[in-house]
Amino acid sequence: MIPRYSNAKVDAVWTHEAKLRRWDKVELAVIEARVEQGAVPQSSSNEIRNALLSNAADITWWIERDLEIRHDLNAYIDERRRYISPSLQHLFHQDMTSYDTEEPATALALIECCTLVENAYEIFIDILRTSARKYRYLPFLERTHGQGAKLRSLGGRMITWMAELDEAYPAFEEALKSLRRSRISGAIGNYGGKLSPQIEKRALEILGLSPLKGSTQIVTRVIQARLAQAIQLLAEPLGKIANDIRLGARSGCPIVQEPFGKRQKGSSAMPHKKNTIRTEQVEGLLRMIRGDVSALVAAIQTWEGRSIEQSSVERVNWPDVFHLVLRILNELGGVIDKLAVYPDNMYREIRDSRGTYATDEAKNFLAEKLAEKGKDAEIAYRIVQLASFGVFEPKGHVWRELRTAVPDSLSLADDYLEMVESAPPEEVNNVRDLILEGGLVPVEALEASQEDADEWNRLLQDIFSVEDTRAKWHETFSIGYLLRSEDDIFREYHLT
Amino acid sequence: MIPRYSNAKVDAVWTHEAKLRRWDKVELAVIEARVEQGAVPQSSSNEIRNALLSNAADITWWIERDLEIRHDLNAYIDERRRYISPSLQHLFHQDMTSYDTEEPATALALIECCTLVENAYEIFIDILRTSARKYRYLPFLERTHGQGAKLRSLGGRMITWMAELDEAYPAFEEALKSLRRSRISGAIGNYGGKLSPQIEKRALEILGLSPLKGSTQIVTRVIQARLAQAIQLLAEPLGKIANDIRLGARSGCPIVQEPFGKRQKGSSAMPHKKNTIRTEQVEGLLRMIRGDVSALVAAIQTWEGRSIEQSSVERVNWPDVFHLVLRILNELGGVIDKLAVYPDNMYREIRDSRGTYATDEAKNFLAEKLAEKGKDAEIAYRIVQLASFGVFEPKGHVWRELRTAVPDSLSLADDYLEMVESAPPEEVNNVRDLILEGGLVPVEALEASQEDADEWNRLLQDIFSVEDTRAKWHETFSIGYLLRSEDDIFREYHLT
Amino acid sequence: MIPRYSNAKVDAVWTHEAKLRRWDKVELAVIEARVEQGAVPQSSSNEIRNALLSNAADITWWIERDLEIRHDLNAYIDERRRYISPSLQHLFHQDMTSYDTEEPATALALIECCTLVENAYEIFIDILRTSARKYRYLPFLERTHGQGAKLRSLGGRMITWMAELDEAYPAFEEALKSLRRSRISGAIGNYGGKLSPQIEKRALEILGLSPLKGSTQIVTRVIQARLAQAIQLLAEPLGKIANDIRLGARSGCPIVQEPFGKRQKGSSAMPHKKNTIRTEQVEGLLRMIRGDVSALVAAIQTWEGRSIEQSSVERVNWPDVFHLVLRILNELGGVIDKLAVYPDNMYREIRDSRGTYATDEAKNFLAEKLAEKGKDAEIAYRIVQLASFGVFEPKGHVWRELRTAVPDSLSLADDYLEMVESAPPEEVNNVRDLILEGGLVPVEALEASQEDADEWNRLLQDIFSVEDTRAKWHETFSIGYLLRSEDDIFREYHLT
Amino acid sequence: MIPRYSNAKVDAVWTHEAKLRRWDKVELAVIEARVEQGAVPQSSSNEIRNALLSNAADITWWIERDLEIRHDLNAYIDERRRYISPSLQHLFHQDMTSYDTEEPATALALIECCTLVENAYEIFIDILRTSARKYRYLPFLERTHGQGAKLRSLGGRMITWMAELDEAYPAFEEALKSLRRSRISGAIGNYGGKLSPQIEKRALEILGLSPLKGSTQIVTRVIQARLAQAIQLLAEPLGKIANDIRLGARSGCPIVQEPFGKRQKGSSAMPHKKNTIRTEQVEGLLRMIRGDVSALVAAIQTWEGRSIEQSSVERVNWPDVFHLVLRILNELGGVIDKLAVYPDNMYREIRDSRGTYATDEAKNFLAEKLAEKGKDAEIAYRIVQLASFGVFEPKGHVWRELRTAVPDSLSLADDYLEMVESAPPEEVNNVRDLILEGGLVPVEALEASQEDADEWNRLLQDIFSVEDTRAKWHETFSIGYLLRSEDDIFREYHLT
Repeated sequence: MIPRYSNAKVDAVWTHEAKLRRWDKVELAVIEARVEQGAVPQSSSNEIRNALLSNAADITWWIERDLEIRHDLNAYIDERRRYISPSLQHLFHQDMTSYDTEEPATALALIECCTLVENAYEIFIDILRTSARKYRYLPFLERTHGQGAKLRSLGGRMITWMAELDEAYPAFEEALKSLRRSRISGAIGNYGGKLSPQIEKRALEILGLSPLKGSTQIVTRVIQARLAQAIQLLAEPLGKIANDIRLGARSGCPIVQEPFGKRQKGSSAMPHKKNTIRTEQVEGLLRMIRGDVSALVAAIQTWEGRSIEQSSVERVNWPDVFHLVLRILNELGGVIDKLAVYPDNMYREIRDSRGTYATDEAKNFLAEKLAEKGKDAEIAYRIVQLASFGVFEPKGHVWRELRTAVPDSLSLADDYLEMVESAPPEEVNNVRDLILEGGLVPVEALEASQEDADEWNRLLQDIFSVEDTRAKWHETFSIGYLLRSEDDIFREYHLT
Repeated sequence: MIPRYSNAKVDAVWTHEAKLRRWDKVELAVIEARVEQGAVPQSSSNEIRNALLSNAADITWWIERDLEIRHDLNAYIDERRRYISPSLQHLFHQDMTSYDTEEPATALALIECCTLVENAYEIFIDILRTSARKYRYLPFLERTHGQGAKLRSLGGRMITWMAELDEAYPAFEEALKSLRRSRISGAIGNYGGKLSPQIEKRALEILGLSPLKGSTQIVTRVIQARLAQAIQLLAEPLGKIANDIRLGARSGCPIVQEPFGKRQKGSSAMPHKKNTIRTEQVEGLLRMIRGDVSALVAAIQTWEGRSIEQSSVERVNWPDVFHLVLRILNELGGVIDKLAVYPDNMYREIRDSRGTYATDEAKNFLAEKLAEKGKDAEIAYRIVQLASFGVFEPKGHVWRELRTAVPDSLSLADDYLEMVESAPPEEVNNVRDLILEGGLVPVEALEASQEDADEWNRLLQDIFSVEDTRAKWHETFSIGYLLRSEDDIFREYHLT
Repeated sequence: MIPRYSNAKVDAVWTHEAKLRRWDKVELAVIEARVEQGAVPQSSSNEIRNALLSNAADITWWIERDLEIRHDLNAYIDERRRYISPSLQHLFHQDMTSYDTEEPATALALIECCTLVENAYEIFIDILRTSARKYRYLPFLERTHGQGAKLRSLGGRMITWMAELDEAYPAFEEALKSLRRSRISGAIGNYGGKLSPQIEKRALEILGLSPLKGSTQIVTRVIQARLAQAIQLLAEPLGKIANDIRLGARSGCPIVQEPFGKRQKGSSAMPHKKNTIRTEQVEGLLRMIRGDVSALVAAIQTWEGRSIEQSSVERVNWPDVFHLVLRILNELGGVIDKLAVYPDNMYREIRDSRGTYATDEAKNFLAEKLAEKGKDAEIAYRIVQLASFGVFEPKGHVWRELRTAVPDSLSLADDYLEMVESAPPEEVNNVRDLILEGGLVPVEALEASQEDADEWNRLLQDIFSVEDTRAKWHETFSIGYLLRSEDDIFREYHLT
Repeated sequence: MIPRYSNAKVDAVWTHEAKLRRWDKVELAVIEARVEQGAVPQSSSNEIRNALLSNAADITWWIERDLEIRHDLNAYIDERRRYISPSLQHLFHQDMTSYDTEEPATALALIECCTLVENAYEIFIDILRTSARKYRYLPFLERTHGQGAKLRSLGGRMITWMAELDEAYPAFEEALKSLRRSRISGAIGNYGGKLSPQIEKRALEILGLSPLKGSTQIVTRVIQARLAQAIQLLAEPLGKIANDIRLGARSGCPIVQEPFGKRQKGSSAMPHKKNTIRTEQVEGLLRMIRGDVSALVAAIQTWEGRSIEQSSVERVNWPDVFHLVLRILNELGGVIDKLAVYPDNMYREIRDSRGTYATDEAKNFLAEKLAEKGKDAEIAYRIVQLASFGVFEPKGHVWRELRTAVPDSLSLADDYLEMVESAPPEEVNNVRDLILEGGLVPVEALEASQEDADEWNRLLQDIFSVEDTRAKWHETFSIGYLLRSEDDIFREYHLT
């Protein structure tokens, strides 16, 4: 990964030094297992261990050797043997094949990286929970299909994000468990020489792993593929969250914005800009994860006892997916932690939806009243639809003219712009009052006729002739009523 | 493809009947080539041709046979021979292998489908061109990063869509050309029996194709892969267009909307909804295309002289990608053709951007004036940034309070909503006037101090003391000035 | 999916009829939950239930209605209400949004299909286990990198296949569990009208599901994505198995072959062919699964409270991935069940590897002996390498000439072919004997000199001067010795 | 890309230094264009040019600045202005937005990398052509479905590889052409400030580019996507070639092998191994390319005037795909250049196919003879199939026993192995002679009865009673006859 997107801790896992130290660990574990079996004297093991631990591998030497013999594990053996006394050299990597060393070491590296993900995820979730609590009662106009739908608290929105992660994270945890299974079972997996099921079991145990019987020269890549899939599964909802923030930050009436530094420049050309660059980057990083993961999953396709297609991919893509997912977690966590939230705009947006934020409840309310009068529920739908479309019809001749004002020259366009700037504030009405007053009129976009409107207005006047009904109707449009069931959801997430 | 998303013309290409008719065509072309070579009497060819053309294949019979022998081409041979007199049967499919018949036939089917794409694309582009012309002078606030940026005409936006397609379509046309190359060259491609380079050339010529020498049992799937890639490349910018429409249709201040039927229901629950269901569907269809294409491209990976992994994929995914891309073209074309466009909202959005739509030009304007005074260009940037941020600061105590009004109960939320509903219209100012008047004040979000503001205001008063400068400043914010270079772009697309 | 690859049981799950029956189930569950809550009389519920169950939906009517209003769930409501008495109609789908019905119904459909996968998988694993037991002691030359490596039993190979599936299947089972969580929580997931957390919980319970709190209008697609990934994860190792069979069936010395029907034709052109068409098809089907899955996973990317990109993909790709994975399980299961296994060729291949099948153990054996003489383990490696390369050097002048016999005309090629056909059987030696006899000679491909060879031969003669060493050396090349640790692996899989 | 797989020339294109030098180029081109327009004095341009060219950018300074302001292009402007006299600073990057500089610079970088691909491809194709010529007459048994099919020359096989590349490479060349189109047209692409269509045209011209009108803030990513697709399309057939080499190198009777160094070790455990590690690596690298390309293609999906998802992907994946495709070309070119080719094994494999290599022609031959006798062509098929299956039936009791010798213990397995080792050479017959002699006998695997066999033998005896027929029959099995049409193919590729 290029430095711009690198995570220092991930880098530390994959340095040459760290890799060779892991190989040391595996080699020493095998020798130790033999000691316990009585096949190697404890003193020999100790001597080898001391030799290795007190002599860090000479990376330059090793790389040169690798270039010469084209085999990095063999080059490592040669490097390490330089510090072991000749009489003990044969005990080092005895009767093992390269992947007897590499497989457990790779498992350890992946586990280390997964721990980094666990930690970053925990921090991320804490930020999300804290924010959800903070915005427990802050209402905004939730959208479906990009259109204002119904009210939800911002905390409630954050719970919907959490709900996605709550489904994704267990897959990661399950995948991580499988990672603790490895092998030290010889060139095709049925042992040989001094390797035996007993040695394998004990050496892996020393490393914190356990045997996966039925391995070939390598552990089935299903295990790594599952982890790769799980990381993508975790990253995908993070991409959705980033996208929701981008959508909420659209200029006009932004309800949230990414944090913006006091010296930051949004754009070199346009000084007014506050761009959603961090959440957009999340999308880019996610695209890379998808590509990397597909190559990691393909590693399952190998020939018979193994072939080595997977090696290059794993060298490149494993570090990369960890860099990427950690950067997403950190960047997005940072954005949410310092998210600029605009309550004023949230209320404004609710107001400007002209009561349509409650059409669901309003329709249900009317349907019940109409049912009492033996009228079809469909009428409630049509009344509310007509009212909703009606309140957004342009009001006043200026706005009516502007609705279709497609200019045929730039100067006419300037004239229209001037009209708008000098226009009186548009009168607005809203669904709640329009229906309450029985003030429906036909709109062109719908089939309802003047007769329909007249009839429905009469029905409405009848319904709303009762004071109590009017009060309840009003309540239907209140935040308190509309969010009445959210408590249950917050309780589920222990956020009350 | 399920009927919901099927294209009848694509279906017609891939029926059993059509497929077997194409196989007839290939078989007859080979016989005819032999006639020309003098190896088969014209009368025999005629007799076979008549037998086949006057006896449509019995699809039921053929399917049953296929189930029995697990080889659809052989089952076809058996079916067809039923109508050929025994003395001529040996001339039918003589010395050919299945893919000698199938490959040219597949090429013909793909070409047919590509023609459907060409036609649909032409219609789509016509719609786009017509719309671009129609909205040549209709200005709106173009966005980058979802934020209002600068003005552009809606016609100009449509040209940016066209520009993408103009880069994608030639790749499709190039791919289509390659498709006309096929093979009739025996079991591994180096001929045999009565097949020869001459017969191959002539038979393919009769079919409107030409030989691809160096084929194995099959034509290299690079050809099909290239076509598949090209179809995705064509579909991708259509996805971007659909997304731009979705973004423009977001409620609040929608500048466009999908056409909506008089009887249509946007939502079963919320009667006010007009959802962007068709453009959202485009995204779904595009996702399927991507998956299908990746499997078609993989067909290049086959063993040696060929293996048959590609067959199942091609049977399923070729018809499907054509269904999908045609549906995208048709749906999206329909949306654009009848697009609801709201000039009033476009002007409103420009107005509500409070002059920030021209910060690029304003900054350049000031930079020049400041340069004349030996001042750094950076100051122009900071002035415009401060003004831009300033005009969006909440004005009046109600709005200032609401900016941070995170409630701790639903009833408080209702109170805040009431505050907004009864609030006096917010006073607004704009960048143009604020700068002209030298009225900068510090804002919390930026580092500029009171001293900075004071100094800059003095500079501005100095600059704008000249009447001509004031006039030019005003012009900088006019549509006519800002879109002055668009003519050049429209000319490039022959849309003036 | 086209009929050629369809599974009848999957088709049955996704028919219009089945779909509408599931919708009935959900609607009735909600009504029943209300009955239990005391909000609806039991008699009303019964009446509605009877009306629906005794009147199957009229699919034609429904499709026509859908075409008219472009909303299949609403069209269903209209259809069903035809059978419900007017006074009860309002209780049907009361205060619900479309996805309140669709989400639990989709969960039920997916669960049904997963059950089909479970069943097919169980059958597949039984076949694999039976075969592994059958070939517990049948040795063959396992390959790594396509090259003969060491001996393994065919049963042992089958265990390596099982090991992959054993890692993949739990991911599927985990994913399936999550599938039982759904929602009936209104247009944006925070309830409304007569929907409440209590009704949701009870209605889902009736359907065998439980609530996923924090849903939007839809259940997070993480759940479906996880299932889709899991299905791919299950299919990938099946692809590897198919590939291993293809590799083992390569002509020359095939050790296995796909079953071949008595009337089957391998090729229309070449009568001798027995092609691996079924295992190749597995690869094709797998390619489709990968593409389909990537589109299903993308469903997580939706806007805010939901948008509808996922709908088209789910209608098409969910049935398809089930068709595909079931076909893979069934076809591949069929192939393994009736797999043609050739012990003669397995032994022949072992023989023809000229003792190299045991070089791992042989090298370890020598290393120990050399260590006793204070010699480096590296010498053992070089001895065995030299011997291995040596036994494959062409023997006799005919074969030596042929090794480089690149002809410059076809007639010379024919001459060479004749030489081979009339050549005496090539003398062969093997690694075991060559080393035992100390008969090493230099080969061009390696750096070892005549002096090296001489020295090593002396060492070998010394080592093998002991009778017991000779006997142990011989044992090292025996199957009994080489497979000595396989018992442990079979025990792990309960296959002893 | 990690150093292990990096290409030094690609690295050189993407260093910070090279990148900033490209930015210099673009900035200077814009100033120069203004000079030509009379807007800037030539002397000012010269002074700026000299200042930049004689002061390489201070990368450390630049990186620190970037970290501070989070905008690498702005940091570059700051760095460069340090060397420009204050009175000229405003002319540098005047009225431009970041991507006015970045887009043409990116185009230049991609073009540079494409040139590297062109060069590497040319070398690769030369190697392939040289090899094809060299092996023009070397026959081997081509396979379909992994099964021996018919004869082809190895040169002919190489032509089939070339045919794939010949279809892929033009797509790359076409994509490269489009890359020469870029933009310098302001923040949303319709110019502004001192930018104009004229300046854009001339500045791009100076850089060797031309304008893409209709761009937004960025050039449509269709252009880059097309290039990315083309690189994958080029890499895919290279993957197929690598796979064919792997298949040909399988031990037993390898017809080719990767070059093997004199000091190389194939395996740390098994000294006899010569593994196909380089061709396997090609597959791994290709998998990475696929993933990287999918992310690059996704860049088309951006919002409106642009958002910045594409940036991170392009920073990482563009260098990477070039590293990868170049490594594939170089590695695979190296393998083919020094490919170990084994004519002896090729002839041996032909011989051991027991005449089945000519069943296509043999069947056609017999069909014609049978037709003369009024017999169905189907009989020819069945005769040749029966003969083909027959020649591979085990001969002699030892081999017949071994065909089904599935042992139930390891010691029995050792006994069977001994049987094989001491067995007399298996008698073999072949299809040519068996048919010539009319010696067909039934085999269990086919339906043909003793009566069928008897009747067919009589027919054959009749047919082959003519001496001339016998001679022609023999010729049918000759290489000269079977490859008679290859000349035509070699001519097509100018390889005669």
